[in-house]
Amino acid sequence: MSKEGLLLVISGPSGAGKGTICQGLLKRDESICLSISCTTRQPRTGEQDGVNYFFLKKGDFEKLIEEDQLLEYAQVYDNYYGTPRSYVLDKLQRGEDVILEIDIQGAMQIKQKFPQGVLVFIVPPCLSILRERLTKRGTDSMESIEKRLHSVCEELTHTERYDYLVVNDNLEQALDQVEAIIRAEKSRPYRFDLKKFMKC
Amino acid sequence: MSKEGLLLVISGPSGAGKGTICQGLLKRDESICLSISCTTRQPRTGEQDGVNYFFLKKGDFEKLIEEDQLLEYAQVYDNYYGTPRSYVLDKLQRGEDVILEIDIQGAMQIKQKFPQGVLVFIVPPCLSILRERLTKRGTDSMESIEKRLHSVCEELTHTERYDYLVVNDNLEQALDQVEAIIRAEKSRPYRFDLKKFMKC
Repeated sequence: MSKEGLLLVISGPSGAGKGTICQGLLKRDESICLSISCTTRQPRTGEQDGVNYFFLKKGDFEKLIEEDQLLEYAQVYDNYYGTPRSYVLDKLQRGEDVILEIDIQGAMQIKQKFPQGVLVFIVPPCLSILRERLTKRGTDSMESIEKRLHSVCEELTHTERYDYLVVNDNLEQALDQVEAIIRAEKSRPYRFDLKKFMKC
Repeated sequence: MSKEGLLLVISGPSGAGKGTICQGLLKRDESICLSISCTTRQPRTGEQDGVNYFFLKKGDFEKLIEEDQLLEYAQVYDNYYGTPRSYVLDKLQRGEDVILEIDIQGAMQIKQKFPQGVLVFIVPPCLSILRERLTKRGTDSMESIEKRLHSVCEELTHTERYDYLVVNDNLEQALDQVEAIIRAEKSRPYRFDLKKFMKC
């Protein structure tokens, strides 16, 4: 089978534990890495170009859009954010699995431009646990939490556009699940090298 | 996620080790079982109805065909062989994973009648190892082995119709691979119960 890496897109509502899962995957497997996005926003204190983001001028970013050099991008207020195609494809060709943590809109762009990308949606175990997690954070008002829970339910009606849905009830089990998905996806027939099979 | 079992269809050329893999899966996991086919052929000495096969009269088998009660069937010379729909579906509903070891034609019928079925094609590591395995068996002439190898290569050009392709180089690794596939397939979005998520 081909040794090429896998592009894994991770989405999910705030409070589902996407970030913890991504960090857990990085710790478990050295051949997994996070993608670095490019952006036109100003670097914050301590942020480094090529580490946190690739910081670009607006004109340079728009050139990447024109040349179809982004796997997905979005404009948030005055700033652009996007995933550089060549950066990701280089990593994949070197056999690294690349994780992208992005929203549904970004994930759908990826699926269109790079159909081999595998879309995983992380779900909290249930609505009341999500409410509890968001309340414990203490960063949102009750009203904004209820609004968010409503939009989570709305989001979950669109998850059939994802390849997999992982319930994050227990972190280690959720990580096992994502690892099984990566392993399974590496057994897809398009990765089989018939010529090599016949030659050996 | 739904607790319903998974229908796993295993195909592959003679000498790929399908049988060993199926037996290995049964040993590893108690909730996995083999499907029992029905047939119109006569039971051989020691064969038991409901264990090795469901032995049916030709008329009864043809009634099953008419009533669309078979997930797939084939006629081999004067005898019918097929997979009983209700037997498999009952097992799945009880949460058991059901393995079916059948050929490409049967697998394609399954995919049509039961799209949730997962098709796995087992491949030997390479052509020369397959030649070696078949030669060691000593049951075929060199000429018939070469014919078979030719048809394996022909078969392998159709594997893109399978969901997964597992190279059986090392048995334990191949079993891990199939288990990862089962686990991944249980994370498909169609298995997610949104109502349950919202109620709890």
